[in-house]
Amino acid sequence: MRAVTLTVPVKTRGRGDVLDLTEPVQEAVRASGIRTGQAVAMVVGSTAALTTTEYEPGLAEHDLAAAFERLAPRDAVYVHEETWGDDNGHSHVRASLVGPSLALPIVGGRVPLGRWQQIVLLDFDTHPRDREVVLSAVGDP
Amino acid sequence: MRAVTLTVPVKTRGRGDVLDLTEPVQEAVRASGIRTGQAVAMVVGSTAALTTTEYEPGLAEHDLAAAFERLAPRDAVYVHEETWGDDNGHSHVRASLVGPSLALPIVGGRVPLGRWQQIVLLDFDTHPRDREVVLSAVGDP
Amino acid sequence: MRAVTLTVPVKTRGRGDVLDLTEPVQEAVRASGIRTGQAVAMVVGSTAALTTTEYEPGLAEHDLAAAFERLAPRDAVYVHEETWGDDNGHSHVRASLVGPSLALPIVGGRVPLGRWQQIVLLDFDTHPRDREVVLSAVGDP
Repeated sequence: MRAVTLTVPVKTRGRGDVLDLTEPVQEAVRASGIRTGQAVAMVVGSTAALTTTEYEPGLAEHDLAAAFERLAPRDAVYVHEETWGDDNGHSHVRASLVGPSLALPIVGGRVPLGRWQQIVLLDFDTHPRDREVVLSAVGDP
Repeated sequence: MRAVTLTVPVKTRGRGDVLDLTEPVQEAVRASGIRTGQAVAMVVGSTAALTTTEYEPGLAEHDLAAAFERLAPRDAVYVHEETWGDDNGHSHVRASLVGPSLALPIVGGRVPLGRWQQIVLLDFDTHPRDREVVLSAVGDP
Repeated sequence: MRAVTLTVPVKTRGRGDVLDLTEPVQEAVRASGIRTGQAVAMVVGSTAALTTTEYEPGLAEHDLAAAFERLAPRDAVYVHEETWGDDNGHSHVRASLVGPSLALPIVGGRVPLGRWQQIVLLDFDTHPRDREVVLSAVGDP
């Protein structure tokens, strides 16, 4: 049994940017040397989130964005913005609802995703950000 | 310490079907022989999700469905559907918002759920599916 | 490698109460003696949830609440309430959408959160509750 931590740096454009992290996460799992066990991926910060989706432009750029607009419209009134002179109340709300982390099994040295299932980072902030995804893997080599 | 992987096959009816997986997950945890540690359950695929709820028909068949209709109405316009001639844009969006996996503690050889708290798989796809839930458990026997 | 379980008791006011659990969770991770690995925090019960947010009153008391009202309005019709003579249909729906647990990496003996990122418990039930958050940590000392 071993425990390994790796960090995946990610540059985003913000504004709901959806980034495919499948390859960097699978590569980090490979680099951990763990073949049977589990991984946790967490994005540091409170205006981004991790989930899985089929990564194709229709879903990533339009359909997910439309649902987030229903849930937390960009132009609604946010007390967070009034308090802090900020413009990202909707970003915080969206990120909290999706959640910052993903728990993932490791089987045969990789995450057993579906063919049309990609690990994605959603950056809801209102400007480009340098993000850090921390990946912890635990298990047997 | 040990790391064990088990697979739980699930047949669903799709269309928002909510299935109670508590017993198969608790059984997989028992079968792992781990008494102190943690488990990850992940459904393979991008149109299903895992969470917990009180598993009773009012919530499972009506109230959750109503909330998902507000979030991602079945009859809204989805670019995903226009691009691929598909009918499951709402399924993808709903699944991504709930998330594909659940991280669960193992205490005394079982997941310490509440009395009215069941582990459920939500299958948002538009037709019956054979699903696979991968369960990874790590900890001490 | 070791596996440690700890329980964090939490008293809530219910009704969407948002509680900052960052310090008790970091303290539990410290108490586990694990410096490299991962933790799972899970709230027992089906009307509460865990996520991260910037813990400040505007977001916690107003903006998150507004989004949950859009998703599952308190005064909508819930079959759960009609069946059981209960008043917390919206509580269940909201809790299921956010999810009961958080998977967290442990790096250098702590969860590497962002400066404005706090671990929070959302209690959606309609009255004050005594909650239990179970924390399982696995890794190397």
